[in-house]
Amino acid sequence: MSPILTQNEEENSSTEIGLVRVPNLHVHTMAEDVLYHLGLGTLTHDLPAMFGDVKFVCVGGSASRMREFVGILCTKLALSETVQDPIINLCGNNDRYSMYKAGPVLAASHGMGVPSMSILLHELIKLLHHARCRDVTVIRIGTSGGLGLEPGTVVVSRSAVDARFQPQMEQMVLGKSVVRSTELHAGLAAELVACGRAVGGFQTVLGNTMCTHDFYEGQARLDGAVCTYSHEEKLVYLRAAHEAGVCNIEMESSVFSVLCRLSGLQAGVVCVTLLDRLAGDQVSSPHDVLAEFARRPQHLVVELIRTRLSGLEKQRRDCAAPGHAAP
Amino acid sequence: MSPILTQNEEENSSTEIGLVRVPNLHVHTMAEDVLYHLGLGTLTHDLPAMFGDVKFVCVGGSASRMREFVGILCTKLALSETVQDPIINLCGNNDRYSMYKAGPVLAASHGMGVPSMSILLHELIKLLHHARCRDVTVIRIGTSGGLGLEPGTVVVSRSAVDARFQPQMEQMVLGKSVVRSTELHAGLAAELVACGRAVGGFQTVLGNTMCTHDFYEGQARLDGAVCTYSHEEKLVYLRAAHEAGVCNIEMESSVFSVLCRLSGLQAGVVCVTLLDRLAGDQVSSPHDVLAEFARRPQHLVVELIRTRLSGLEKQRRDCAAPGHAAP
Repeated sequence: MSPILTQNEEENSSTEIGLVRVPNLHVHTMAEDVLYHLGLGTLTHDLPAMFGDVKFVCVGGSASRMREFVGILCTKLALSETVQDPIINLCGNNDRYSMYKAGPVLAASHGMGVPSMSILLHELIKLLHHARCRDVTVIRIGTSGGLGLEPGTVVVSRSAVDARFQPQMEQMVLGKSVVRSTELHAGLAAELVACGRAVGGFQTVLGNTMCTHDFYEGQARLDGAVCTYSHEEKLVYLRAAHEAGVCNIEMESSVFSVLCRLSGLQAGVVCVTLLDRLAGDQVSSPHDVLAEFARRPQHLVVELIRTRLSGLEKQRRDCAAPGHAAP
Repeated sequence: MSPILTQNEEENSSTEIGLVRVPNLHVHTMAEDVLYHLGLGTLTHDLPAMFGDVKFVCVGGSASRMREFVGILCTKLALSETVQDPIINLCGNNDRYSMYKAGPVLAASHGMGVPSMSILLHELIKLLHHARCRDVTVIRIGTSGGLGLEPGTVVVSRSAVDARFQPQMEQMVLGKSVVRSTELHAGLAAELVACGRAVGGFQTVLGNTMCTHDFYEGQARLDGAVCTYSHEEKLVYLRAAHEAGVCNIEMESSVFSVLCRLSGLQAGVVCVTLLDRLAGDQVSSPHDVLAEFARRPQHLVVELIRTRLSGLEKQRRDCAAPGHAAP
């Protein structure tokens, strides 16, 4: 088996600065690329025309929540003119994922769990590459279980960690174990925390996010169909996670961090906590309370996009001003 | 940590023969059980009235495909009278999963990957338990990549195997590795193969199914966003899988086998192959060809349900016949 790409090899695999990197030499020799689960392809769709202006990709588990997010974006950032009414799912008849676009923002649903996120990202990264997008930031917006935090607190992830609290993900490639780093972009994380504080009305904290492959046994719940441990054993594990700096638990951040890192994409994870797992297991708050919690990371990310777009706009105006020397 | 239940402990954990087993003592002490991802609960829904007559649970990745399956069931088994028109999604507004019911058959979508299947099954098994269902058979209907088979061949799984071709699944429980058996019910598998041959029009074979956590690198594809191996290394791996008895590759069968075994449910996996992975990676056949392939396992499973229901009906008539001694 060939060695895994080193950091240097990764950085050299794209020749043009800012373009989305596809660390797979085989893709560059393919006559056609069918992005099967997105219902898109390089010969059937004009990907540069459809997606070339994308600067932000926001992903979340649920299709309806991502559609709601695009609605908020349109209202708050005056992007309605860039969107068809009703908002079109760009994945067409394919019901694996849903994808919506408003101006420079692409919003996609990723389903639940690492494998579902992995399929979306492999195809989304190739889509951004084929569309020749530049300087793209990718953010996961989600829900999670918190550890020692008031429900409704928003956690910006410093790093995704595994079930033993290490910032890494193990995966099987050709039957062999490969371990990759799950650290996230520190500068973007700091910016996201600042945006949470600017929006206000809820707490925003920075911390590690444990990514599990199972909602029940993998997260030490007592209320699954199968459970082989006691209440005390559960608490010993969750307290150890908390002491190791884990603020919340979800199911997609590890592969999200890995694939964005390998493709040179700035990536961030912003999840609200729906309950405190040190206090219980069941998600039983009223629907409207949970829905309001789920909108908090959306508002935070809208604020990030607003700030970034204002910055770009100012740069453009400064460049166009009389007396400004061309670079 | 408590030891994992032995086979004997599993078998003793349900006191009434035929009832769906929940190998988790904590569930029996809960005042309420919110099945969060299904949008159902023991205090908000009358689960025995809604689901008590269920004898077959069919699960598949895509919601639209499971809805189509219920349509075929209604037509072929004259179950239309048991179904509201239009067919109602019993998960309501929750867009994580979809669930439809026709007579004694419950059909649910499970999304993509082991974690998504795991969440569905934990909640579905508890649902069947709370509803006091008896003698339930569970079948996964899906699509897969084949190994050395003509595309469109239907594979009935003998066992799910991992990336090293072993009939087991490793999962993390309280940060420790737990390995469980993924063998499927041999009698049901033989019955499913016979049904495939009875339906005809396509090949049906019995074999092992490799379950991976990733569609691209995990399945040795060359067309993902990331790839670190050569065409030759890919073929060496896939040929080794083929020689170890792997007929097809998909992404949910391992946890499906594990959780059904632990709950005492007869379980089977029936997947059509969309392409031969020894010949290529991209799923690029025309949409109508793929759609016809995807209906093959549906027709096979409809035939199983038809045969089983005819058997039950005959039993009932024999018992009711004059001169029949009560058992």
